[in-house]
Amino acid sequence: MKAWFKAIENEAEGSEFALETVLKELSFDEQGLIPVIAQDSESKEVLMFAWMNRDALNETISSGRMCYWSRSRKALWRKGESSGHFQQLRSLRTDCDGDVLLAEIDQEGAACHTHRRSCFYLKFDGKQVRIET
Amino acid sequence: MKAWFKAIENEAEGSEFALETVLKELSFDEQGLIPVIAQDSESKEVLMFAWMNRDALNETISSGRMCYWSRSRKALWRKGESSGHFQQLRSLRTDCDGDVLLAEIDQEGAACHTHRRSCFYLKFDGKQVRIET
Repeated sequence: MKAWFKAIENEAEGSEFALETVLKELSFDEQGLIPVIAQDSESKEVLMFAWMNRDALNETISSGRMCYWSRSRKALWRKGESSGHFQQLRSLRTDCDGDVLLAEIDQEGAACHTHRRSCFYLKFDGKQVRIET
Repeated sequence: MKAWFKAIENEAEGSEFALETVLKELSFDEQGLIPVIAQDSESKEVLMFAWMNRDALNETISSGRMCYWSRSRKALWRKGESSGHFQQLRSLRTDCDGDVLLAEIDQEGAACHTHRRSCFYLKFDGKQVRIET
């Protein structure tokens, strides 16, 4: 766990830190990526999980639209650019050790490439896993 | 994306697959880990993000309590074992390409090691990041 996050963890509610400091302290993995959870800002449903590199994160913050890093295409992935299913950023958080991002978003259309609203449509149930949206 | 997940993506709502098949097809990374999002089953608040290896996932499913893999301690991490802050598993899902898990849980006490309910207490706001639980 990074020393900076450890050092601020007992600060009071409402304490503020410079954006550029936090951006510098975030942990990106050995491939330069940080995981991102995208959650519907209204229903709180988790819609998808993806990755950002520093460029994707900077673009997301400056544009207010979710931009990921596509690990398969090895390119910036401006969500909705081809599908029209844009994600408007409503709030962004990081966690106690700065190695994951949680974005509340407004989703146009479907988050999932299968046209389901959420990617998490496979639900474990005993000895079965069921398609349940 | 794994062929198995691609092959079932157009199946109808309610379609069922054997648990053991899905477990076999899940993608664990080069360190043998899969990311896990833990969400409050009632409020839908995202409480924490962690990792499981196959043993942790099997134990979580069989015990009904969240068991992660601690990357720092390199050991199974039975959440709550030292803190008393157990997480009861309420539902488990995976996503369209089977490389992440979403668990709805009932959290005893705090999910975060800082004793905050959620780990995601650092909120981006313009040029600042604020402690906001």
